[in-house]
Amino acid sequence: MSYAEKQNHCYPRQATAMEEDTDFIPNLPEGPLNVYRKQASFDWKKLKLVFDKPEILKLKLKVWRTLESDILFHTGDTSYNVDEQKRLAMLQLVKYIQYKFYTDGIANNNYKKKTRTMMNLNEAMAVLNLNVSIKFALGVSLFANAILSLGTERHLPLYKAAWRGEILSCIALTEVGHGSNTKRMRTTATYDPSTQEFVIHTPDFQAAKCWIGNLGKTCTYALLFAQLCTADGTCHGLHGFVTPVRDPKTLLPYPGIILGDLGEKNGLNGIDNGFIIFQHYRIPRESLLNRLSDVTLDGDYETAFTTPEQQLGAALENLSAARVGIMGEGTNACCCAVAIAVRYAAVRKQFGPNPDDIEFPIMEYQLHQWRLFPYIAATCALKVYVADFTDQYLECVEKSNSGETVSNLPASVSEIHAMVSATKPLVTWTCRDTIQECREACGGHGYLKASGLGDLRNNFDASVTYEGDNNVLIQQTSNWLLRQWNKVREGEGVASPYNTVDFLSNAADILKKKFTGRDLQDVTNHSFILNSYQWLICWLLQETHRRLCISQERGEDKFTARNNAQVFRARTLSLAYAENNALVYFWRRCVSQSLDSTIQSVLVKLHVLYGLWCLEKHLTLFYQGGYATDSSLADLVKEGILQMCSQLKPEAVAVADSLAPPDFVLNSVIGKSDGKLYDNLQAHFFHNSGAMQRPPWWNEIVPKPLSKL
Amino acid sequence: MSYAEKQNHCYPRQATAMEEDTDFIPNLPEGPLNVYRKQASFDWKKLKLVFDKPEILKLKLKVWRTLESDILFHTGDTSYNVDEQKRLAMLQLVKYIQYKFYTDGIANNNYKKKTRTMMNLNEAMAVLNLNVSIKFALGVSLFANAILSLGTERHLPLYKAAWRGEILSCIALTEVGHGSNTKRMRTTATYDPSTQEFVIHTPDFQAAKCWIGNLGKTCTYALLFAQLCTADGTCHGLHGFVTPVRDPKTLLPYPGIILGDLGEKNGLNGIDNGFIIFQHYRIPRESLLNRLSDVTLDGDYETAFTTPEQQLGAALENLSAARVGIMGEGTNACCCAVAIAVRYAAVRKQFGPNPDDIEFPIMEYQLHQWRLFPYIAATCALKVYVADFTDQYLECVEKSNSGETVSNLPASVSEIHAMVSATKPLVTWTCRDTIQECREACGGHGYLKASGLGDLRNNFDASVTYEGDNNVLIQQTSNWLLRQWNKVREGEGVASPYNTVDFLSNAADILKKKFTGRDLQDVTNHSFILNSYQWLICWLLQETHRRLCISQERGEDKFTARNNAQVFRARTLSLAYAENNALVYFWRRCVSQSLDSTIQSVLVKLHVLYGLWCLEKHLTLFYQGGYATDSSLADLVKEGILQMCSQLKPEAVAVADSLAPPDFVLNSVIGKSDGKLYDNLQAHFFHNSGAMQRPPWWNEIVPKPLSKL
Repeated sequence: MSYAEKQNHCYPRQATAMEEDTDFIPNLPEGPLNVYRKQASFDWKKLKLVFDKPEILKLKLKVWRTLESDILFHTGDTSYNVDEQKRLAMLQLVKYIQYKFYTDGIANNNYKKKTRTMMNLNEAMAVLNLNVSIKFALGVSLFANAILSLGTERHLPLYKAAWRGEILSCIALTEVGHGSNTKRMRTTATYDPSTQEFVIHTPDFQAAKCWIGNLGKTCTYALLFAQLCTADGTCHGLHGFVTPVRDPKTLLPYPGIILGDLGEKNGLNGIDNGFIIFQHYRIPRESLLNRLSDVTLDGDYETAFTTPEQQLGAALENLSAARVGIMGEGTNACCCAVAIAVRYAAVRKQFGPNPDDIEFPIMEYQLHQWRLFPYIAATCALKVYVADFTDQYLECVEKSNSGETVSNLPASVSEIHAMVSATKPLVTWTCRDTIQECREACGGHGYLKASGLGDLRNNFDASVTYEGDNNVLIQQTSNWLLRQWNKVREGEGVASPYNTVDFLSNAADILKKKFTGRDLQDVTNHSFILNSYQWLICWLLQETHRRLCISQERGEDKFTARNNAQVFRARTLSLAYAENNALVYFWRRCVSQSLDSTIQSVLVKLHVLYGLWCLEKHLTLFYQGGYATDSSLADLVKEGILQMCSQLKPEAVAVADSLAPPDFVLNSVIGKSDGKLYDNLQAHFFHNSGAMQRPPWWNEIVPKPLSKL
Repeated sequence: MSYAEKQNHCYPRQATAMEEDTDFIPNLPEGPLNVYRKQASFDWKKLKLVFDKPEILKLKLKVWRTLESDILFHTGDTSYNVDEQKRLAMLQLVKYIQYKFYTDGIANNNYKKKTRTMMNLNEAMAVLNLNVSIKFALGVSLFANAILSLGTERHLPLYKAAWRGEILSCIALTEVGHGSNTKRMRTTATYDPSTQEFVIHTPDFQAAKCWIGNLGKTCTYALLFAQLCTADGTCHGLHGFVTPVRDPKTLLPYPGIILGDLGEKNGLNGIDNGFIIFQHYRIPRESLLNRLSDVTLDGDYETAFTTPEQQLGAALENLSAARVGIMGEGTNACCCAVAIAVRYAAVRKQFGPNPDDIEFPIMEYQLHQWRLFPYIAATCALKVYVADFTDQYLECVEKSNSGETVSNLPASVSEIHAMVSATKPLVTWTCRDTIQECREACGGHGYLKASGLGDLRNNFDASVTYEGDNNVLIQQTSNWLLRQWNKVREGEGVASPYNTVDFLSNAADILKKKFTGRDLQDVTNHSFILNSYQWLICWLLQETHRRLCISQERGEDKFTARNNAQVFRARTLSLAYAENNALVYFWRRCVSQSLDSTIQSVLVKLHVLYGLWCLEKHLTLFYQGGYATDSSLADLVKEGILQMCSQLKPEAVAVADSLAPPDFVLNSVIGKSDGKLYDNLQAHFFHNSGAMQRPPWWNEIVPKPLSKL
């Protein structure tokens, strides 16, 4: 009987799980990591197929093998200057497109299948080189998708040209003065019936489009979002325009445009983020992406929508695929970070019980386990959650695009949006913390650029504020949750086709529950975690709602009331909701019948660790809300975390192996799969650029005058 | 009656505080920040003098003015390649030494006064350019100090040469395989009586000295720590040797040495961190720093110590000044980060109650206040704490060096060491989190290199693992605290000359206390914070001790027992101890009679906010330990945090002004004191290197073949 079964008797499973073929996964080299690898209770290759299905992993391996055999994708151990980084990323992008990983065969699939494949390719590229994958997404795939969903036949040549790599685009939404508040974008596109052109204009510097990836140096087209105005002076809201910005023959900007690169960033310097100012710049009427709204030759505005908000929503909904993509990239970044830190912890030895005797690998220390293992668990949970959620997301978009009448579609779209809006923050913040803790857990050696951890951090750091600033985006989740709460209060059912908040209908009973556990086994199980989260979410909804009511009684406007309900309430609520989703989705896979029991067993441990570790951060709330009254909840949750850490110690290296990409992709001198830490460090120390060379500027610094010493 | 007085009636103060002269502090330019500056209840210049005494601030301003007028210290907006960064840092170091800010007049003061001045100069340099300050500390000041305390007359010429900039040193302790476990260093210095030389040898790559700043490219001497062995084969422990490593005329390494630079790092790339392997490399007998131990001509070892541990302690004690220096640098980095983020928050507007009406500065949002203001408060508290503690530290070292019999000296040294060992982690982790939250609070614009926040993070990130890895170092604090706890349990008094744990003698009563507050004013005051921390520290000591006893009963060895008492116990204990020290020291200054009441009032609010914010992170423990039993503690602490944030909103910009260095030093395009965010961004966008220029490699990327679009 597997560990999973012992934990939870209520699900059926087959006696023997179906055997997956794992032969296509390359073996790992022998070495010092074998000590721990031999302790693992499961086959790391089988676990790897939990995180990436065979066809996905095969595709990724193909991409990685292809790029590994191309010297253009081998980066040095020293940063190039930022201009050279941009040049290299652009050359790599061109080459990446030329490899045609996205074949016509793939493109002929249905929306979900082909988009999912595109996302898998993006993930493969992103984990190797985030610059190139982002340049590709902005310049080709997101652009092409937007043309399909917002444009009409007349835009198809651009769609095809983008896929063929003949044009490169950017997506120009953010302005200098406005990012989160998209309604306030001030670039205008005014229709001039006399010439049948739109006149694009930037009223002042604050309205300059900025942070636009690919715009600084390389793109020829912009998918520009501007306020569409008609000649009568009416503004009809943000619309998309395909706008040529550079002459493709010379790469010089067209007259009427002031355009530039906004300079070095904290990371992602292969991407040329730019700004653009339009000075009464004219583009043809046909540039408008006119599937949903259009302007007639004479200048009359026609639309399928009744309000500008709907128009805005439709224009921007397209970009939410980018958020889902970021979630995938974030989980892969976590995989890299924990793989590096776990392998390091397994071979780095320091201290021991006897000063003159052997030293212990640092992974033997409970403190080190507690620092790292919860991040391994988080990585596994989020990776599975994001993978399964991405499929649901694409199904929902596919239904939405089909034009068919699908029952519950608006509810599905809303729930998906609520999930994205909290999951992107949860994943990117977890990724930030994972990378940082892994960097610290590798001590000084983690501060080497060659460790890979610094670049990981600096590149992924952008994700917490781009594609929706986390702290703003996440408010959309609590707004949706509060709407569901109000439905429950009014006796209606929740509108939750994905069942993420079905339990709210039972809130009254849930809120009466108390923690009564007395033993460790009362908390180290799925039911405890599930029940605790359900209570937590109900309680936070109640508290957030209560806070809003107080504001209402005080006569505060809705805007103020919402703002004053964020801290300790709505924000925590949204995060707890995302954590619970991750745990629920992860659990479904833990108990999947197709897994063999050794894999189930380790997944369940990881599930429990992630669950307890998340709950531990919320413990105060359980006391504040009266769910717990004595020390037992806190005692047991903490003890449970340590117990899970201890149980995962023999498994950790094998779990890391299952999460890690090949060494070429991981690109870390301290995290290589051979575990030969000191040999690899020595090679790096001796052979890094100019390592042993007297500095060329030695004659500038020789001290003068010299004393005779 | 001031706010401080209302909070706490028990201290006397003068009716009118002494007026400080603030005229020497340059005024700030008028601009958009005036809106908030006018709301402040106090004079920011007066607050500035709380953080830096007038003579210290004057010295810093002198340094900054001098360097601002020297183009060598003006850095561009784009990173140089790493070799050029090293060259520039070295040239800047030479120039910095030539400016002779550390005058002979200063050098003739007593130890405390001159060292404090050196530290102030170091702080001034560090906040402008951390590379140069670290190169100077390792290459000159720490080296020279070590020679004074460990060497004898024969080493004085080196001391003088270092100060004159004629030689540059490095401090070679860490090895590839060992950082934290200094006892395991394996580089040997074996005395050869036949030639009266020490033979320095590196047995294998793991014993290579590495991470040694200045060693990679530039230094001529190493202060080398190696195991001193005598010809009879006896090893006498780590000793310091002044070891020539490069020919000062050519900067080429001497034969018998393999030496190199270990390559690019996550930050601090102006510093040439290197490694060195000695191959039976011979240095004269006189190279041994022989104040405390020596080897006779014939090869007999003589020492003032009875154990190698004492010898090791004496050799390494010298380096603890570096930890105190890091604490100062960390608080200054926090100053920069919060100044940038607060000024940005005051002028950046986004959203408003009415979509068509004015937008609010993001500082108006409670969520944003809650994100930023606790870090302002933490910065103020830690800055004051570290400043005052540094004085105590230097007094203690001065007494220790004097050779006089001072009562309580061993106890003082131990307590100081315990304080350093927890305060360095507290400050560097707080600094890490402050910078990250400030970066995120500036949204996308915080991801610009020109924001200054990325470099701040990458440079200071090293501090969490260098000069004692935080997670290892902090264990020394809990060890000391547990010793005090055992004294109390055995009926002895604590050995706490600095009174940081006097309250432990009252632990039995403290642990019986319960929280009984019912109103906000029951928590928004100093007594509540003090009492809560005393309870918390006592309870964590009790729990840690209990955990150790359980281990003992289980028959675990002491090493294992200690390791298994870290998580949730000893580690939390040490951090709580450091937080409490910060709060106690900060409070002393809040109620200082020399301050005028407007300054006291704002300091008290900052104190309460920092105290409540720290306590909030520990809330679970108060429930776990039975100090609180219903929701009121959590409710009130959280509500108190929000109240303090709200009260600090009109003060925040002025507090930031008092913390911020001049614009040249702050070096942030989004944090300038003129508040002209968009003008400054525009200038940066337009004028950064190559901003508007077609890339030189445009012809490599022009798409071919081109479709006719």
